[in-house]
Amino acid sequence: MSSSALFADLYEFTMLRAYFELGMNAPATFSLFVRNMPPQRNFLIAAGLNDLLHEIEHLRFEPRHIDYLGSLKISSQPFLDWLADFRFSGDIYAMREGTPFFQNEPILEVIAPIAEAQLIETLVLNQIGLQTILASKAARVVAAARGASVVDFGARRAHGVDAATKGARAFYIGGVESTSNVAAGQAYGLPVAGTMAHSFVEACASEMDAFQSFSEVFPETTLLVDTYDTIEGVKKVVALARALGTNFKVRAVRLDSGDLDMLSRQTRRILDDAGLTDVQIVASGGLEETKIDALTLRGAPIDVFGVGTDMAVSSDAPAVDIAYKLTEYAGKGRMKLSAGKQSLPGRKQVFREFRDGVAVRDVIAREGETLPGVPLLQPFMLSGRPVAEQTCDLPQIRDYAKEQLAALPPHLKALGSHARYDVAISDALASYERETRARVID
Amino acid sequence: MSSSALFADLYEFTMLRAYFELGMNAPATFSLFVRNMPPQRNFLIAAGLNDLLHEIEHLRFEPRHIDYLGSLKISSQPFLDWLADFRFSGDIYAMREGTPFFQNEPILEVIAPIAEAQLIETLVLNQIGLQTILASKAARVVAAARGASVVDFGARRAHGVDAATKGARAFYIGGVESTSNVAAGQAYGLPVAGTMAHSFVEACASEMDAFQSFSEVFPETTLLVDTYDTIEGVKKVVALARALGTNFKVRAVRLDSGDLDMLSRQTRRILDDAGLTDVQIVASGGLEETKIDALTLRGAPIDVFGVGTDMAVSSDAPAVDIAYKLTEYAGKGRMKLSAGKQSLPGRKQVFREFRDGVAVRDVIAREGETLPGVPLLQPFMLSGRPVAEQTCDLPQIRDYAKEQLAALPPHLKALGSHARYDVAISDALASYERETRARVID
Repeated sequence: MSSSALFADLYEFTMLRAYFELGMNAPATFSLFVRNMPPQRNFLIAAGLNDLLHEIEHLRFEPRHIDYLGSLKISSQPFLDWLADFRFSGDIYAMREGTPFFQNEPILEVIAPIAEAQLIETLVLNQIGLQTILASKAARVVAAARGASVVDFGARRAHGVDAATKGARAFYIGGVESTSNVAAGQAYGLPVAGTMAHSFVEACASEMDAFQSFSEVFPETTLLVDTYDTIEGVKKVVALARALGTNFKVRAVRLDSGDLDMLSRQTRRILDDAGLTDVQIVASGGLEETKIDALTLRGAPIDVFGVGTDMAVSSDAPAVDIAYKLTEYAGKGRMKLSAGKQSLPGRKQVFREFRDGVAVRDVIAREGETLPGVPLLQPFMLSGRPVAEQTCDLPQIRDYAKEQLAALPPHLKALGSHARYDVAISDALASYERETRARVID
Repeated sequence: MSSSALFADLYEFTMLRAYFELGMNAPATFSLFVRNMPPQRNFLIAAGLNDLLHEIEHLRFEPRHIDYLGSLKISSQPFLDWLADFRFSGDIYAMREGTPFFQNEPILEVIAPIAEAQLIETLVLNQIGLQTILASKAARVVAAARGASVVDFGARRAHGVDAATKGARAFYIGGVESTSNVAAGQAYGLPVAGTMAHSFVEACASEMDAFQSFSEVFPETTLLVDTYDTIEGVKKVVALARALGTNFKVRAVRLDSGDLDMLSRQTRRILDDAGLTDVQIVASGGLEETKIDALTLRGAPIDVFGVGTDMAVSSDAPAVDIAYKLTEYAGKGRMKLSAGKQSLPGRKQVFREFRDGVAVRDVIAREGETLPGVPLLQPFMLSGRPVAEQTCDLPQIRDYAKEQLAALPPHLKALGSHARYDVAISDALASYERETRARVID
């Protein structure tokens, strides 16, 4: 889903007009970073870059956009003509998708003539914010599942179609196995999953009839057993197995309400006693990481968790304090000093230091410094064109995220913990910050 | 932005295939309702219907959709051929957009051959859920502003482009004056607003230079004064006014950080002392209804509130427990009995009773009953076509919402209150519920 070139705050256009009229077209650097981690997160996982780069590369103003901007009385004809020819021609450096990151670290830097870098602000914040929030939430849910599979059931509760579809991609990066969202399956080649809802059971003459009919059409299905009474539903699956004999191919039952710990144990026992040890148990219904954690900790025999609402909207942290700030213009460092909203000047790099395979410290440095550790910001777009060597397919991004998560100190990953990772600022950056501050105050 | 016909959970397609193979094509009724109000909401405001109806009317499977579904191995060729010819042919009854509603009340009912009504489930939940959540949040923010204007600054923090754009529409229904989102302005004809960001100030040689240059291009603008030091920034606006004399047309200053109560008072005093009594004060930066309520209650001299993140994601209630349930099939009432998830059978109507212009009670009744009060469910689509007489433009919807909010009991609207409105079930519906329950248990 490609968004309109008009998807920007009006002030981007008024500032662009002013830059245009004032002849301000020197190169600028804008930095994307999260000022503070949400209270419930010790780190976030960068995601959304690939979709963003695609949008930026193809950002064009169509005649209907130009007409609309003309109607707003913020434009002059020469400015509108300039917009009609707009192409993003800048460079973008970023952390790879799937990289865990921390407060104040630049996760993306745009270097371009100031108007170009300014125009994409709203899009960058919206799109990287969305997938980052959702990939980060998914990683928590997946960790809580302790090896059981997690399926994204969130399409109906996500905030709109864009969130549902890009969310499915972000969840996959965070470790989720598959999605119920067919549009996302098509858009990103994600595995899709889903079988039946209560409405099918209710529309049939009886629950038994529903199970029989549905498994005739889809022999290797999952039967939803809680429409009327969960345990009675499971017993009907056993009766169906007896009736069908070797033709019984049902793969799983799904529990969608009630006490999932107790019901999963009863269900497992009934299935095992009937020799249906291969029939798996899928659980869903209001699940999020703390409930899943409690279930897996106590050993509830659940093979697959279907997770919707809470993951779809990242309900405990639906927004992050993500900012896109001018840090350099015309070769000079820039920063604001507004209370609680300072930013670090200039182009930067982030070095991650590892010890015995575990990340121990990040250092935010000036671009061009060489410090110990792995430099996390890499070129992804140069002169408006994506850098081909950086192209990753989604399973590669997912593997990279898994590997990077595995390299984080364990205390950062514990669900309820409030731990802080050491993020330092290089001496060179600290002194550049002091110089810049002195200059702008002056 | 039109979504793909594939925007549905996979189980909708597997159920459709089963309905198709089993010859189940009798009329069904599905009901959309919210099971429980979120703890922070005494009511919600219905929104999103117009966009939804447009999508349903134009829902078509294109060849690339059919090819993808064919690749999933859940389909047969006759089923794919049937999908290729799919048109929604059903009826939709709904509450008008802008109607406040309560727990368990049907806000929308779909009557159609079961496969048609089933297919649109994900879309209905996602789209009505989104705009309903956001319109409801906006109404709280607007109430807290006590007559000051509210501007939507949320595009960058909304969950994706669809949420940002439809959100701007929902906020407008909830009483917000304008949006910063230009794409939403174009899509819905909304008033748009915005002038300058910190980056413009930082890119200029000095703050004074920035104010001077910007107000040359846009004389009637709002100047952002907190880039370095808010009070110093305000003093520069005063200096600019002195320098420009009668050519000074600046309309407002914007405060975006710090103690907004204190800073707005100091700013007002400085402006007034300089004779700039017409220059308004815009405040923004992490605002939501409780902070705005505190500011307006204490009389902070703020004329306009710019509200972003918290409204954009409805951060205190980012999801609602909205459900779309089969209530009738082939002329018989249907319901599920799953723990905590019961639904009311059959087609329904909601009557709202008023006393002295104040809503006092709602009664959920069977369709066809005539009871005291205003029937809230009206036909919006018949045989797949929108009902022309129901078409409202957005300002009409906004006015209607304002009028309906004014008719709610005041205790429901107090920000922190947990009050419950009386929602009764008619005798006829109660006895139909008992009959249906007895039948399905049987």
